[in-house]
Amino acid sequence: MRAVVMRGRQLVVDEVAEPEPGPGELLVQTLACGICGSDLHALQHGDQMVEMSKVSGAPFVMDLGADVVMGHEFCAEVLDVGGSGGAVVPGDRVVSIPVVFNANGVFSIGYSNQYPGGYAERMVLSSMLAVKVPNGLATHLAALTEPMAVGRHAVERSGAGPGTASVVLGCGPVGLAVIAELARRGLGPIVAADFSPARRALAATMGATEVVDPAVEPAVAAWQRVDGAKPLVIFEAVGVPGMIDAAMLAAPRGTRILVVGVCMEADTVRPMIGIAKELDVGFALGYTPAEFADTLRSIAEGELDVAPLITGTVGLDGVPAAFAELANPDAHCKILVEP
Amino acid sequence: MRAVVMRGRQLVVDEVAEPEPGPGELLVQTLACGICGSDLHALQHGDQMVEMSKVSGAPFVMDLGADVVMGHEFCAEVLDVGGSGGAVVPGDRVVSIPVVFNANGVFSIGYSNQYPGGYAERMVLSSMLAVKVPNGLATHLAALTEPMAVGRHAVERSGAGPGTASVVLGCGPVGLAVIAELARRGLGPIVAADFSPARRALAATMGATEVVDPAVEPAVAAWQRVDGAKPLVIFEAVGVPGMIDAAMLAAPRGTRILVVGVCMEADTVRPMIGIAKELDVGFALGYTPAEFADTLRSIAEGELDVAPLITGTVGLDGVPAAFAELANPDAHCKILVEP
Repeated sequence: MRAVVMRGRQLVVDEVAEPEPGPGELLVQTLACGICGSDLHALQHGDQMVEMSKVSGAPFVMDLGADVVMGHEFCAEVLDVGGSGGAVVPGDRVVSIPVVFNANGVFSIGYSNQYPGGYAERMVLSSMLAVKVPNGLATHLAALTEPMAVGRHAVERSGAGPGTASVVLGCGPVGLAVIAELARRGLGPIVAADFSPARRALAATMGATEVVDPAVEPAVAAWQRVDGAKPLVIFEAVGVPGMIDAAMLAAPRGTRILVVGVCMEADTVRPMIGIAKELDVGFALGYTPAEFADTLRSIAEGELDVAPLITGTVGLDGVPAAFAELANPDAHCKILVEP
Repeated sequence: MRAVVMRGRQLVVDEVAEPEPGPGELLVQTLACGICGSDLHALQHGDQMVEMSKVSGAPFVMDLGADVVMGHEFCAEVLDVGGSGGAVVPGDRVVSIPVVFNANGVFSIGYSNQYPGGYAERMVLSSMLAVKVPNGLATHLAALTEPMAVGRHAVERSGAGPGTASVVLGCGPVGLAVIAELARRGLGPIVAADFSPARRALAATMGATEVVDPAVEPAVAAWQRVDGAKPLVIFEAVGVPGMIDAAMLAAPRGTRILVVGVCMEADTVRPMIGIAKELDVGFALGYTPAEFADTLRSIAEGELDVAPLITGTVGLDGVPAAFAELANPDAHCKILVEP
């Protein structure tokens, strides 16, 4: 089958072996797959990602000397259920947590050598984890389940509630998913900050109640201006070195900081800032199967309008150029691949 | 009056001006005052402490070019209540949070140029914050209220409860106060780790259920050996660079790490470790007035036996030598100054 292959720090479009479903697995046809910022990072700094995964126990361990087919934000059509006898039948559209369990362990779909991701014509999924897309929900919107579930989980982990205000640092897809989930729950004010005008416009569309350019007004100053009373939760959704310390420095006393931006590098913080203000710094990754399934429901029922996030669509041949375009935050938010 | 003065990075015993109580303030005679590890740090790295306090908003801002009289773990006898008409009368023994409010702001007793601490014959306290020592409680034990309140507050902030296990990294006075408070609440298992045999013996005395030398067995491995089931709370009570990252690396998934060791320096962490394990890192400083008062009650009623922590007593002339001796964790735990 055709696929976009990560090979020697390059993306190449090539023929790869057809994936073969084992016991409890489905063969599916990829319909749409979002390009994630982590994929851009993996292409540029794959060694760092693998090394940090080994240290931290994250399931992103792969041999970069061999082919990897990335893509973990997908919607697909079931081709063959094999002997799995699950809840889906050929022709059903499904989304899934990008993980497969088998006798040899747990594998990431999209960050492993064993299971090709959604930048390929076909994939193998775990029948236990596949969730059927409701009739009437467009494939493109269903493909946003995965990144929106990240925001859902981050809000769940953050302790944000009716009594708190939120500041979201960074309005890439993760920050926007957090904003959308906060808005879905009716939790305001939501102050969003990003240097990019296009991202700021999207933040307002997704439900931010106050949007600032941090070069003009720091996010915490904007919170003081519009609220300044409710205990603050700060979502760090930028994920570059220095952001955690900057959030700690800007935070009012007693703030909870939820780190959802993935920073693969070592970072410097000043613990005394956390001590003097009695801060809490929580870290979030991924989502539970229940959160993932309920995010699909939220999209299907119109609680989460994800259409504005999709700014482009490409075929497999267009993926390398799309990776380059995504480096410019004003050009795109989420590009979907249609293999 | 006579005092031990921090002057030009040295401790000197000298005559200083008598403190004069203002409105709402008491004049007291210092009876006993513990030497805190932060005092050792302030003597060696005072510039760093002041700089970090300015950045973080901590109330330890002082002019190191002028005299500072340290000492914030004290028990004192009331000499004069002035016009404050509070709940205490001359002759009463009191302890207090080492803070004074006046028209010019909030001042630290022991880390300011305005209010001398307990390494002096007399002090001025806020009458509102002074708490009377119950009859029958020895002065030396009452002087331990402050460091024990630090442990009380840290346990309160940590989320430790009947359903959690605890690991305490570092068995200096702060770690030992945490252990004693966990034991007072009946929260086990309590795994304590320190390189010093003397400190490990004290940890067992204060209530640790398992005590390890981290050179022989890592603390988290010891928790796995004795429990391994309950969600873990790790108390970081060492306070040197690298400890937070080490705790994050050792922590099982979902652990809460409570940083109570004061690290004044910038520190390096790997956020990806926190993300992959969804850790929470909380920071604690000090205590509330209610926690402080209830810690005194706990000591007076015998819930907390603090006597084993006191390993020496010196007069003002002995303070410089005591600072030097405290650098050796096997020689001493808490030395009390009797001015």
